[in-house]
Amino acid sequence: MPPPLPTTLNVICDLLGVVVPEGRGGEVFLGVATLEEAGSAHISFMHGDKHSSAAAASKAGAILVPEKAHFTCENALRVPDVIEALIKVLNQFHPVHAPSAHRDPSAAISATAQIGKDVHLGAHVVVGAGSVIGDRTRLEAGTVIGANASIGSDCRVGPNASILDDTQVGDRVQVHAGVVLGADGFRFEVLKGRPTKVPQVGRVVIGDDVEIGANSTIDRASFSETRIGARTKIDNQVHIGHNVTVGSDCILVAQVGIAGSAKLGRGVMIGGKGAVADHVSLGDGTQVAGFSAVHHNLPPRSKVIGVPAIPAKDFARFHHFQKNFEKHWGKIKHLFRDSEDQ
Amino acid sequence: MPPPLPTTLNVICDLLGVVVPEGRGGEVFLGVATLEEAGSAHISFMHGDKHSSAAAASKAGAILVPEKAHFTCENALRVPDVIEALIKVLNQFHPVHAPSAHRDPSAAISATAQIGKDVHLGAHVVVGAGSVIGDRTRLEAGTVIGANASIGSDCRVGPNASILDDTQVGDRVQVHAGVVLGADGFRFEVLKGRPTKVPQVGRVVIGDDVEIGANSTIDRASFSETRIGARTKIDNQVHIGHNVTVGSDCILVAQVGIAGSAKLGRGVMIGGKGAVADHVSLGDGTQVAGFSAVHHNLPPRSKVIGVPAIPAKDFARFHHFQKNFEKHWGKIKHLFRDSEDQ
Amino acid sequence: MPPPLPTTLNVICDLLGVVVPEGRGGEVFLGVATLEEAGSAHISFMHGDKHSSAAAASKAGAILVPEKAHFTCENALRVPDVIEALIKVLNQFHPVHAPSAHRDPSAAISATAQIGKDVHLGAHVVVGAGSVIGDRTRLEAGTVIGANASIGSDCRVGPNASILDDTQVGDRVQVHAGVVLGADGFRFEVLKGRPTKVPQVGRVVIGDDVEIGANSTIDRASFSETRIGARTKIDNQVHIGHNVTVGSDCILVAQVGIAGSAKLGRGVMIGGKGAVADHVSLGDGTQVAGFSAVHHNLPPRSKVIGVPAIPAKDFARFHHFQKNFEKHWGKIKHLFRDSEDQ
Repeated sequence: MPPPLPTTLNVICDLLGVVVPEGRGGEVFLGVATLEEAGSAHISFMHGDKHSSAAAASKAGAILVPEKAHFTCENALRVPDVIEALIKVLNQFHPVHAPSAHRDPSAAISATAQIGKDVHLGAHVVVGAGSVIGDRTRLEAGTVIGANASIGSDCRVGPNASILDDTQVGDRVQVHAGVVLGADGFRFEVLKGRPTKVPQVGRVVIGDDVEIGANSTIDRASFSETRIGARTKIDNQVHIGHNVTVGSDCILVAQVGIAGSAKLGRGVMIGGKGAVADHVSLGDGTQVAGFSAVHHNLPPRSKVIGVPAIPAKDFARFHHFQKNFEKHWGKIKHLFRDSEDQ
Repeated sequence: MPPPLPTTLNVICDLLGVVVPEGRGGEVFLGVATLEEAGSAHISFMHGDKHSSAAAASKAGAILVPEKAHFTCENALRVPDVIEALIKVLNQFHPVHAPSAHRDPSAAISATAQIGKDVHLGAHVVVGAGSVIGDRTRLEAGTVIGANASIGSDCRVGPNASILDDTQVGDRVQVHAGVVLGADGFRFEVLKGRPTKVPQVGRVVIGDDVEIGANSTIDRASFSETRIGARTKIDNQVHIGHNVTVGSDCILVAQVGIAGSAKLGRGVMIGGKGAVADHVSLGDGTQVAGFSAVHHNLPPRSKVIGVPAIPAKDFARFHHFQKNFEKHWGKIKHLFRDSEDQ
Repeated sequence: MPPPLPTTLNVICDLLGVVVPEGRGGEVFLGVATLEEAGSAHISFMHGDKHSSAAAASKAGAILVPEKAHFTCENALRVPDVIEALIKVLNQFHPVHAPSAHRDPSAAISATAQIGKDVHLGAHVVVGAGSVIGDRTRLEAGTVIGANASIGSDCRVGPNASILDDTQVGDRVQVHAGVVLGADGFRFEVLKGRPTKVPQVGRVVIGDDVEIGANSTIDRASFSETRIGARTKIDNQVHIGHNVTVGSDCILVAQVGIAGSAKLGRGVMIGGKGAVADHVSLGDGTQVAGFSAVHHNLPPRSKVIGVPAIPAKDFARFHHFQKNFEKHWGKIKHLFRDSEDQ
């Protein structure tokens, strides 16, 4: 990634809609850093007053401070939402490359593939027969696109990702390195005592603005489609089985596993290493804690924890018992003795 | 994958050994779909009477119906085993490609490799010195085969898979995208306070008819062999450590992890995210639930759940207690008070 | 990997500092094998007297035996530390290749990359603009190095690994097949109801002598650095999130997940499938059992198990209750009845 674009405080304040500190508009900043690591040419940020001592000690040239915070300092830039401001500032320092047409001579592009405008095809990229690559999309080195696949515009894929035959990817999708989309679903039936493969002839369909983390895998449907809704964000090493439907605006943290034919509604969040069993439906806005496994359908806005998952408040009570088990068990054993004594 | 091969009802009925519905033998079908998604040119299927209302409402041109079901309709094709029939129909619509020799000019094949008849070598494939590729095997784009490896006939590997030095793969094996076979086992001994590598000089041996899901990893043995038995099916993102022996006809669901030197018998099934600790032996037909971890040897046909895993029936009772903990705990605390009152 | 180097017993004994058995110094050995699998041309080993019957039955030409063991046999080579001796013998049979310069004609190396002496660049390797590859490092086939990355000397990377822009890798590091270093961290903030990406502009820094297992992923920092300390060993399919700091000499077993901004001290060990929540700190020498999830900071030398993790000794007592739940619950229900009877 290119180094941050040097930017004046004038530009930054303009971007954030805040007043330029007197006489400092021409100062040049070189990037964002934490309160501890920032120098005078860095913008830093604090989320609230619990970080005020770190903010006071920081050498940052300017600090994004929530409007509501009591803390103040002469380098403060007060903003209504620090995270929103931080994202704006980061995008200013690190603008997305202007796309431009590039086809590495080592790329192997089928004569029947359709390549859009200003597409970047890295070294050793492969695009199979009949596939379509949208405008301004970047396929990084070593990425393989199978046959009859479709990748939208303004996407970024790879390096070393594999998007297999028939997969449909929307616009502005990021597919990170090593991802595999469209491998066969895992469906074997035991016939005459031997696992027998059910042919997997469906496909994967990915909505617009989805992001899929490194080395994640999404399997093609047995038939019909495995679907990922718009704006859903998937972390690294997530596995999504055949015929799963994931709604829009979901967040699936690293190493989550979703078994075949599960249905996730809109805005579902699943913590790291969480799991959903096959054919289970989760209502809109369901929250599954990390390291939890859901075996039954859940209504909208459920919050569950555990293996198998139970309501979060029940789990908390049980875990309190577990943590203090030694003490409780002593008392329970005492009751056993009392009972035997009678 | 090519579109389904249009097929007449005559051909389908002949394949299934059922009587052709009168006057319909010439109708052309275009594929398989669920009861909900099927149109008049689709074959659909029902597993039993619980799906009879969906079957009645379906627009499918023909429906595979179990012989034993009470449900009937004029589009029914009654078969003894719906799954077996479905597999036959899918294989009819989606025949395996006739293999044919293809060597992409970008493939880097060692002069000392032996390539069989009608082998497909995709773009940017690498085959190392002394390796042997069997007849009709397909190596998809970006796949790397190391030195002195052996891949059987009628296999399919990749894209972007890595099969490292000395690995032996049987016939009719499917190795999906991003799989790594034969990376070093994870064996470090702490010598003088520092983790010290034990050289990993064994290999991986994969039996016939095995399938290995996308981004799974199987490590080479420290010395001797890591072995996967014939017909065993491995889902995506499964990890199998050094010197493990997996028997034949096993099913390992996504994200399972098997630690070093474990031994799985024949027909072992492990649910998603299940784990087996190092040096543990599981008898033939053992069933380990998903999200469970086995720490001790198990006799044949055990059924276990939990972390650490306990017999399934014990786990069920315990989980019932956990789910109703609030109620039970109220009563237990009541006993504590009674006891203190005495 | 080349076959083992035939080696005389003279050379082996000299290496181990043991007396050559009379008249046998010229015998040629061909490798290491287990007691069960060894033949007369193999060195085998036993860890202690519990293996003495296997050792007595072994056909091994020589057996590494601990000095303290009671067992003896005429083929015994008595050594103070069998593992240390085994590592020496394995390294003798399997010497590391002498490095030599090799650049496959298909490798795509940027004109602005700096390639050290005796570097091996395999088929279809990519090295981006401004990147530096140290002396004697091997980049295996299909490996992609992004822009402005730095790989130290005597490293081994790949095949099909992806080391993205700006990543810094120390000396003598092993990065196995399919690893992804430097993909974007998973940081999305919900703004106006939609997950919004926080640009990920930091980098990954890997210390000297680190090993990273196949298909593992380490994300770049949001800004600043994700850091892996010297000599830390990481197994397959491990995920390490953005801004994590892992100390030196840690051991992370397969499928571990470390969430964003966690801090692991020196010598931390985490068993397979273990997890650490975001922003959690683990003191030096902490041991987390496999299949456990740490949600709170832990002082040095903690030993924890469970989800959420609790002290190992508390977990053991609780698990004993769980395993014997049926019996205990019978007694507890009996108390409930007694109480209701009163």
